[in-house]
Amino acid sequence: MGSLSQIGELLSLQTFGESHGPAIGGILSGVPAGIPVDFARVKTEMEARRPGANALRSPRNESDEVEWLSGIFEGKTTGSPIGFLIRNTDQRSGDYEALKEVFRPSHADYTYWAKYGIRDYRGGGRASARETACRVAAGALLMPWLESLGIEIRAWVSSIHQHEMPQDFGDWTKEQIRQSIVYCPDQKCSQAMIKAIALARDEGDSLGGIISAKITGVPAGLGEPIYYKLHAALGAAMLSINAVKGFEMGRGFELTRHKGSEVNDLFYAKEGKVKTRSNHSAGIQGGISNGMPVQFRVAFKPTATIRKPQETLSQTKETIAIEAKGRHDPCVVPRAVPIVEAMAALVLADMWLIQQSKALHEGTKA
Amino acid sequence: MGSLSQIGELLSLQTFGESHGPAIGGILSGVPAGIPVDFARVKTEMEARRPGANALRSPRNESDEVEWLSGIFEGKTTGSPIGFLIRNTDQRSGDYEALKEVFRPSHADYTYWAKYGIRDYRGGGRASARETACRVAAGALLMPWLESLGIEIRAWVSSIHQHEMPQDFGDWTKEQIRQSIVYCPDQKCSQAMIKAIALARDEGDSLGGIISAKITGVPAGLGEPIYYKLHAALGAAMLSINAVKGFEMGRGFELTRHKGSEVNDLFYAKEGKVKTRSNHSAGIQGGISNGMPVQFRVAFKPTATIRKPQETLSQTKETIAIEAKGRHDPCVVPRAVPIVEAMAALVLADMWLIQQSKALHEGTKA
Amino acid sequence: MGSLSQIGELLSLQTFGESHGPAIGGILSGVPAGIPVDFARVKTEMEARRPGANALRSPRNESDEVEWLSGIFEGKTTGSPIGFLIRNTDQRSGDYEALKEVFRPSHADYTYWAKYGIRDYRGGGRASARETACRVAAGALLMPWLESLGIEIRAWVSSIHQHEMPQDFGDWTKEQIRQSIVYCPDQKCSQAMIKAIALARDEGDSLGGIISAKITGVPAGLGEPIYYKLHAALGAAMLSINAVKGFEMGRGFELTRHKGSEVNDLFYAKEGKVKTRSNHSAGIQGGISNGMPVQFRVAFKPTATIRKPQETLSQTKETIAIEAKGRHDPCVVPRAVPIVEAMAALVLADMWLIQQSKALHEGTKA
Amino acid sequence: MGSLSQIGELLSLQTFGESHGPAIGGILSGVPAGIPVDFARVKTEMEARRPGANALRSPRNESDEVEWLSGIFEGKTTGSPIGFLIRNTDQRSGDYEALKEVFRPSHADYTYWAKYGIRDYRGGGRASARETACRVAAGALLMPWLESLGIEIRAWVSSIHQHEMPQDFGDWTKEQIRQSIVYCPDQKCSQAMIKAIALARDEGDSLGGIISAKITGVPAGLGEPIYYKLHAALGAAMLSINAVKGFEMGRGFELTRHKGSEVNDLFYAKEGKVKTRSNHSAGIQGGISNGMPVQFRVAFKPTATIRKPQETLSQTKETIAIEAKGRHDPCVVPRAVPIVEAMAALVLADMWLIQQSKALHEGTKA
Repeated sequence: MGSLSQIGELLSLQTFGESHGPAIGGILSGVPAGIPVDFARVKTEMEARRPGANALRSPRNESDEVEWLSGIFEGKTTGSPIGFLIRNTDQRSGDYEALKEVFRPSHADYTYWAKYGIRDYRGGGRASARETACRVAAGALLMPWLESLGIEIRAWVSSIHQHEMPQDFGDWTKEQIRQSIVYCPDQKCSQAMIKAIALARDEGDSLGGIISAKITGVPAGLGEPIYYKLHAALGAAMLSINAVKGFEMGRGFELTRHKGSEVNDLFYAKEGKVKTRSNHSAGIQGGISNGMPVQFRVAFKPTATIRKPQETLSQTKETIAIEAKGRHDPCVVPRAVPIVEAMAALVLADMWLIQQSKALHEGTKA
Repeated sequence: MGSLSQIGELLSLQTFGESHGPAIGGILSGVPAGIPVDFARVKTEMEARRPGANALRSPRNESDEVEWLSGIFEGKTTGSPIGFLIRNTDQRSGDYEALKEVFRPSHADYTYWAKYGIRDYRGGGRASARETACRVAAGALLMPWLESLGIEIRAWVSSIHQHEMPQDFGDWTKEQIRQSIVYCPDQKCSQAMIKAIALARDEGDSLGGIISAKITGVPAGLGEPIYYKLHAALGAAMLSINAVKGFEMGRGFELTRHKGSEVNDLFYAKEGKVKTRSNHSAGIQGGISNGMPVQFRVAFKPTATIRKPQETLSQTKETIAIEAKGRHDPCVVPRAVPIVEAMAALVLADMWLIQQSKALHEGTKA
Repeated sequence: MGSLSQIGELLSLQTFGESHGPAIGGILSGVPAGIPVDFARVKTEMEARRPGANALRSPRNESDEVEWLSGIFEGKTTGSPIGFLIRNTDQRSGDYEALKEVFRPSHADYTYWAKYGIRDYRGGGRASARETACRVAAGALLMPWLESLGIEIRAWVSSIHQHEMPQDFGDWTKEQIRQSIVYCPDQKCSQAMIKAIALARDEGDSLGGIISAKITGVPAGLGEPIYYKLHAALGAAMLSINAVKGFEMGRGFELTRHKGSEVNDLFYAKEGKVKTRSNHSAGIQGGISNGMPVQFRVAFKPTATIRKPQETLSQTKETIAIEAKGRHDPCVVPRAVPIVEAMAALVLADMWLIQQSKALHEGTKA
Repeated sequence: MGSLSQIGELLSLQTFGESHGPAIGGILSGVPAGIPVDFARVKTEMEARRPGANALRSPRNESDEVEWLSGIFEGKTTGSPIGFLIRNTDQRSGDYEALKEVFRPSHADYTYWAKYGIRDYRGGGRASARETACRVAAGALLMPWLESLGIEIRAWVSSIHQHEMPQDFGDWTKEQIRQSIVYCPDQKCSQAMIKAIALARDEGDSLGGIISAKITGVPAGLGEPIYYKLHAALGAAMLSINAVKGFEMGRGFELTRHKGSEVNDLFYAKEGKVKTRSNHSAGIQGGISNGMPVQFRVAFKPTATIRKPQETLSQTKETIAIEAKGRHDPCVVPRAVPIVEAMAALVLADMWLIQQSKALHEGTKA
């Protein structure tokens, strides 16, 4: 039994909702019973994604309050599907009336129309990144449980436009990352990014960037060997985030420029545990975690909406010029940090449950 | 109803088999009835992936004859599941006896053992890239049908080690690509790659590289908006191929270094059809095809097996030195070209059927 | 991608919510775009299932107002997931405080506790038949579309306790069925049923019964041959309804007492169409519809909740006596008529879309 | 990731193959690693289903040898997909040449043709019950593992035509059942059934019947509450078997004629374990097993193929008379006993794994 608007197998998230409808929401299904829910943690993660949280973000003012509707009783999960809702409180559909019959460049207006023959044009409708608020809510709910299993997920902005952190995959703490409003733990780089985003905003332009992530404490054995490899699932999860155009395990594309003898990871034992001396495999071999940190990078293209005038087509295929007027982000990459973490949490939790299902003896227990 | 060793939703491929068991094979399910089967085409694609086909490849000599067992009657598909088999004819399990209790560096020996507490050590067992022969067989069966719908898939090697084609995503014909034994359509670059691979082979080392792909004729409207976006499905399919460590739509990672105003794709109409002036979106917007060529790149790490001596661990966690003795490829990237094409065919066929299911009116018909 | 709390493949319904939480709801996913939504029709079907609608039902007073949250724009479906919500307005959790640690006989209290180690004891929690309101909402939304395709679904009560309609599978209209408060189209039988239910209510006991259904206009060709046969999907859908303990196509169990020569359905042609002289196959052969009416019967056990005193166990395994005090139905069978119709609509719509996906030529078009 | 020709979620079986193609086979996926395989047990179950095994069966002579191709190493499962093959050795396609353009009454000839616009007419093609050999092979492989978990599955023939066992759901041993060639453990009834089948065979007619099943040792807690209830999954599995037209838990249809006070199952404790005094719930409450025996009944219609002359249509819609000439069974019910057991094994194994995946504490461990 499946749905094409759903992610995960044993533990899954299905979402619904458009940018300018009454609400968005979702069903998080397959969460084991008895897990304590940390509502404050959810709030923290929602805030990290929220528009309007600082001057570099869209001024759209959504409270992004999550209303939990089921599957939680006396502060713990019950094993039943967890339904939740986030009301859209700051909808200005009027802003979009002008764009009703326009196919905005590099937006999904045309493709939705081609696919469905109909579209909810208000603020991007279903294509709006507003949907990702549901992912953050669901992922944040899972994180304390994963942490109790020893699994820690950290994502940060490692590059914006041409400003790139000098080296990647450091052991950053959440505090080090989140103290910067662009979620870049390198202070100097963070300053340069902030300046660049402010400038792009003032110019009416937009910037892209890269988010890096490191997951520690993943037990060896997670991931299904052929078509549901751990990194294939992570890749699909990340590529499902708005504006993402690339995914690599570790420095995947750079690896192609090295020889096997340079990038093979040699095994050794440390206190009875199997380790590798380097981690070019980025924690995954044959699609299965090997106990080393799982690390990957996600490429975000610059936001499609810019204030600069652009030429495009109307629904009736006439050429017209547009200039964005709504409330937009000059750079969505920082806001995507909690989304990347949430998607990673969804994948890891699913893989952990799948592995536990078949663990017949101690050795293979997740 | 699902399986974690399966890819695709309405049209799916599930495979089975180990490198050194009696046979590998699969079930291709959901293919519409009445599609003519081109067995010669399958043979051509199988040959393109086959080991032993030229001096740059592993000398393992497999005939890779596909035995079709069901779902085809009088030369056409019947709509029933298509079962098929490929016998393993050149197994030398003896070669692997020595590696029985060894965790080879950057191989999946350790992770399978950690996952299952047991492993079929002969030639990598289930983790062997031999499994990909099934993908090529299934994909090749679908290609003539996709071509009859106007969809053409081309993949080629665009870089090996530090040799990279000067520019990417040209309109290469199959002949231009396949005339080079490394499947690189740029003659000069091809020569350099061949030399580099021969040198790595002689040095007992291995090389990685990048495969690029371009799919033309994809109708606008394919792809499911949220978690089964066309590029998320393509990414998961490619990341499921052995040795793949990265995936990007168009030049995804490079896009992050440009401004929105530089990389937005402006719409215009040409002979009544919607087109974009540039194709930085790589044919997909909001997860849905826009009618422009779909193009992507796949990063392959260097093969893990090298003849150079390496230090590693035994199953009992003792340090040992190993040197590969079996029959291996110094570079698997060229052999992966038909695999990339096959995986793309599987994804496109699935998406096409899904879209056709919901096409209630002419305008939205795939 | 799947979920174990979901039904359907291309078109699916996933629900959430407990009897006494803030709300129940669901996501109906995969509905084609452009289908007009008939909100009044949904209201009618919700009313047919609603508690408190007449004196034979539980006096729990729920307005059962459906709040549609997404996937509908300007009165039509958009192709995006349709999220919806039904608030629980008449919760008296206090009624259940006494049952907090009791395993009620033939209820799911014990099994949920055994499964999850935790339970939401308020009114049956997730096990409450309240969840079926979501099914009715979703099914009712699909019905006008199915009817526009020629598919008409009718269900009725054919037996309550020992009162059985003299013959089954007549061509009843919706009006003939719904005019009786127990939804039995045979007037005499309906009277007897009403009396029997009233008596059971007064005695503090409960009754079961059978719902029969007939679906006309199903085109030949729906249903997937092996494990997703049309009747297997219908059976699973019906067996997922609370209190259902049996399912048969036509008079399935009675068929076992006849010879092949008596019950084979002979084909003949009528106005160029293929028909069968009898319909013992109940419209399905080899799991695929044959164009004749699809008909089946669903067995409901008597409601578990009765006011008569019963002996049972507490959570601490002590023997205790209980008498139900909450607001209950002496017979749920009539209220299940719209549920059966809704589940049939979900299955038929899914099967129709699946068949349309693979219809490459006119002849096989659903 | 799914397939419509597949059953099961975490543990799944997908099959392929037609009656008169080179082979049938399947992939059993998701079986945990390290389970010993009992090939003799598989042989025993295959023999119990095999045509030609005794004088009451079709004389088609198939050896039904299962060739295991993968997923088993040194006598144990490895966790990888288990591929297997059964060659068709006694194909007399010529027998069917005459039926090439005929729609046989109550067969799937017409519906396949209507669905696909093409059909493999040889011996029923994909619609042939030959496919069930794959199910028996897969189920038999799982049984010793289930038995090691304490789960015992027994099915038997409880009625043929009008000969019915005096009472149902006894504690029959496998020996008591299998000593009768019609697999009815009641000796007197068995004799009457044998006579009836022989008579039907001689008359050129066919008979149906009922198979009952009892599964002991099912731990409390198996089954997913809403749409993947244990009995819904069992029902779907049984309804997917050829010729099945009905399914009931315990005596489901008879239950509808009793009052709640008569058929509620009262809980009591026995040696610290929760039990019920009666078992009208048939081991399942709210879709979840309660630890009592799971018992159900499956209705098989009489075989469609009879030697008596019948009137039907050709593919060109002309009326013609036919008389079956191939090799057929006058009654398939006994041969379906191992199929019912195999399907139950598939469902139980899947449910057990699902439950183990989420068992975070001892109490809820399957």
